[in-house]
Amino acid sequence: TMRVNWDIATAEKGGYDHFMLKEIHEQPKAIRDTLASRTKNGLVDLSKEISLSKEEIQNIEKIHFVACGTAYHAGMVGKYVFEELARIPVECDVASEYRYRNPIITERTLVIVVSQSGETADTLAALREAKKQGARVVAITNVVGSSVAREADDVIITWAGPEIAVASTKAYTSQLIAIYLLGVYFAQVRGHKSAAELQEIVTHLQELPGKAEQVLKLEKSIESFARSIAKHQNLFFLGRGLDFAVALEGSLKLKEISYIHSEAYAAGELKHGTLALIEENIPVISLATQKSVYDKMVSNIQEVKARGAHILGLAVEGDTELRKSVDEVIRIPATIDLLTPVLAVIPLQLIAYYACVERGYDVDKPRNLAKSVTVE
Amino acid sequence: TMRVNWDIATAEKGGYDHFMLKEIHEQPKAIRDTLASRTKNGLVDLSKEISLSKEEIQNIEKIHFVACGTAYHAGMVGKYVFEELARIPVECDVASEYRYRNPIITERTLVIVVSQSGETADTLAALREAKKQGARVVAITNVVGSSVAREADDVIITWAGPEIAVASTKAYTSQLIAIYLLGVYFAQVRGHKSAAELQEIVTHLQELPGKAEQVLKLEKSIESFARSIAKHQNLFFLGRGLDFAVALEGSLKLKEISYIHSEAYAAGELKHGTLALIEENIPVISLATQKSVYDKMVSNIQEVKARGAHILGLAVEGDTELRKSVDEVIRIPATIDLLTPVLAVIPLQLIAYYACVERGYDVDKPRNLAKSVTVE
Repeated sequence: TMRVNWDIATAEKGGYDHFMLKEIHEQPKAIRDTLASRTKNGLVDLSKEISLSKEEIQNIEKIHFVACGTAYHAGMVGKYVFEELARIPVECDVASEYRYRNPIITERTLVIVVSQSGETADTLAALREAKKQGARVVAITNVVGSSVAREADDVIITWAGPEIAVASTKAYTSQLIAIYLLGVYFAQVRGHKSAAELQEIVTHLQELPGKAEQVLKLEKSIESFARSIAKHQNLFFLGRGLDFAVALEGSLKLKEISYIHSEAYAAGELKHGTLALIEENIPVISLATQKSVYDKMVSNIQEVKARGAHILGLAVEGDTELRKSVDEVIRIPATIDLLTPVLAVIPLQLIAYYACVERGYDVDKPRNLAKSVTVE
Repeated sequence: TMRVNWDIATAEKGGYDHFMLKEIHEQPKAIRDTLASRTKNGLVDLSKEISLSKEEIQNIEKIHFVACGTAYHAGMVGKYVFEELARIPVECDVASEYRYRNPIITERTLVIVVSQSGETADTLAALREAKKQGARVVAITNVVGSSVAREADDVIITWAGPEIAVASTKAYTSQLIAIYLLGVYFAQVRGHKSAAELQEIVTHLQELPGKAEQVLKLEKSIESFARSIAKHQNLFFLGRGLDFAVALEGSLKLKEISYIHSEAYAAGELKHGTLALIEENIPVISLATQKSVYDKMVSNIQEVKARGAHILGLAVEGDTELRKSVDEVIRIPATIDLLTPVLAVIPLQLIAYYACVERGYDVDKPRNLAKSVTVE
C-alpha cells in the first residue's frame, strides 16, 4: 500500500495537452522545492533528514547507487558527484543486476537507492539485500511513506509532486538535486573541498530553477528539430562524461514514447564499433556541455559529420564554436560542469515529447510500459 | 613501432572466405594456446609473468578494468571473475571515459588494461595516468612488444595469433581466458576459495577448447538463423549477469559488420523503457545460460514473446525448458556459469558473420572502422 501526500486536483493537466509536457514545465518548481529549506548559510544542511553522524560519513569507504531506468541514469550522475566532491569511490548498478550478482558489501558501504515511486520491485529487493549484509541505506524517492522510504535508514524526499506520465521528467531532475545536496553535504563533512568551493556550488544550485525556466523558453526551436527527426527509425546520442549520462536518459525518453530506436554512446567508443552505423542523414544528438572534454567531443562530432550524419549540438551559452561542426545548435544557460545535467536533459525531454506527438502516439501511456514497475 | 612475433604466412585465409570466419574457427586453438603452460598441478601458475608478490596481491583493495570496444566487454566479464573468485571490488570503465574523469586511484589499486593490439590510444593514455597516480598495471594484450606491453608492470600475452579481421573474435575469447587465469591465480593467493574449488574451475577451463569445437559444429543452424534476420534493421540482445556482458559483445559484432542497429539490454531493465520498442517479428536474441538467474530470464523472455518478438534462445545442453518460450534455440555445451561467456559468444560471432554475408557487406573491412584505434 502506498500513501500519497498530495491533492488529486494538482494532478490535472492544467492547460497542457499531456501530463508529460506539464511535468516538463513543472521542473523549475520541482527543483526549487527540492532545494528549499535544505541550505543554510550558503551550505547544505541535511541534518534533519540524514541520521548518519559525521564520523559515519567520514568512515564510508564506498557508495553503491542502485536503481532502475531513469533513476539509474540519475545514479550515474551521482557517481561523478560523489567521486568529485567527496572522493568516495562509487559504483552504479541497475537493481536487477545488482541484487543477483553477489556484490561486495561491507558495513562501510553506503547504498543509495533511487526510485520515484519508492515501490520499484528490484530496487526494493536490492535495498533489503544491502541491509541484510550490513550496509547503511539512503533512499531518494518522490513518495513519502513508500516501501523504499520506510525501509531505508534515511530518506531524501524529492519534492517533485505527483508524476503521472509514464516517461519520468521532473522526478529525474529532482533526483539530481537530491544527489547534489547529499554530495555537497558529504563533502562538507569529509573536507575534501573548501567551504568556499562548496558555497559556490550551492550558489549555482540555487540558480538552477531560473536557468531551467530559460531552457523552457527554447521550446519552439526544440519542437521544430523534434518534428524533423520524427520520420527516422534510428538515431544516436553522443556525449562524454556527465554528458554521456544525460545522453542515456535522453535516449531512453525517446525510446519510451516515440518508439524510435535511439541509442546513447560514450563518444570515445564510437571508433570501436558504432561508427559503422552512421550513414547519410541519420540524426545524431551530440552533447558538448562539459568544458573538461570539449575539444575531444568536438573532434568526435566532426568524425560523425564526415560520415554524413545530421547533427544537433547541445552547447552552453556563449559557445560560438560548436555551430561550425553541427547542423543545428541549442544553447542552454551556463553553469558549472557538474550541474549541467539538470539543464541539458530538458531539451532532450522536449525532443522526445514532440517526436512522439509528431508520430501520433500516446505520450502519457506508451505501449508495454507501466508507471511503476512493482513486479520483477 | 610494433614488433610482430608471428609468421605472415599464418595470416592467410587458409580456405575460409574471410579472415573473420577463419579467426572464429581458430578459437579452440587460441584458447588452448593461451591456457598452455600456465597451469601446474591442477592450479594456475603465472609466477613467471606476474611479478606481484603474494603480499602485494593480498593488499590489492580494488581493481579497475580499463579498455575499449570488445576488450571492454572482456573487462565486464572480469568484474564478475575477480569479485566472485577473489572478492576484490572491480570497476570496469571504457578508457576514453576513465582517463578524463579523475578516477580514484591509490597505491592499492590494480589497473588491468586490455587491448588486442596493445596500441589503443585511449587505453595507453589510461595506463600512463594510472601509473602516474601510483597504481600497478597489468596488461592483457595479443602483441608482444606493443606499447601497452612495454609500459605495463606485468603482461599476460593472449596467444591468439594475428587477428586480421576488424571485428575481433579470437582475441576476445583469449582475453577471457587470460582473465580467468589471473582471477584463479589471485584467488589461490587470497584464499577466498578452497584449492579444490579452484582446481575444479581449472579443469573446466581445460575443457573449453574441446567445447568450443563443439559449438562450431552448430554453424549450419546458426547460419540459417543469421540469414533469416539479415533483412531487419533493428534487433535486440537480452541477458542477465554474465549473459548481459556477452550480449553486449554479440550486439557490437552485429553492428560493426552487418550495420544492423542492434542493442543489448540487461533483461531486468526491459520494463523500464525498451519494452516499448518490441513489436511484431522484431528479432530478439536472448541468452539464458546462467543457472543463477535462469527463472528470471525465462520470465523476461516470455514478456518479450507476448509482444510478438521472434526469439532465438541461447541455452545450455540439457535445457529442455527454454524451447517452450522461444521460436528457435541453440544449445552450447554445459560448463560452470562463470566460464560460459567463452562458449556463448561463438554463436553470436557466427550470427554477425552470416548476417553480414547475407547482406553483402565487406566482412573483414567494415565501413568507417579501423583494426586498431591508435588515434584518440
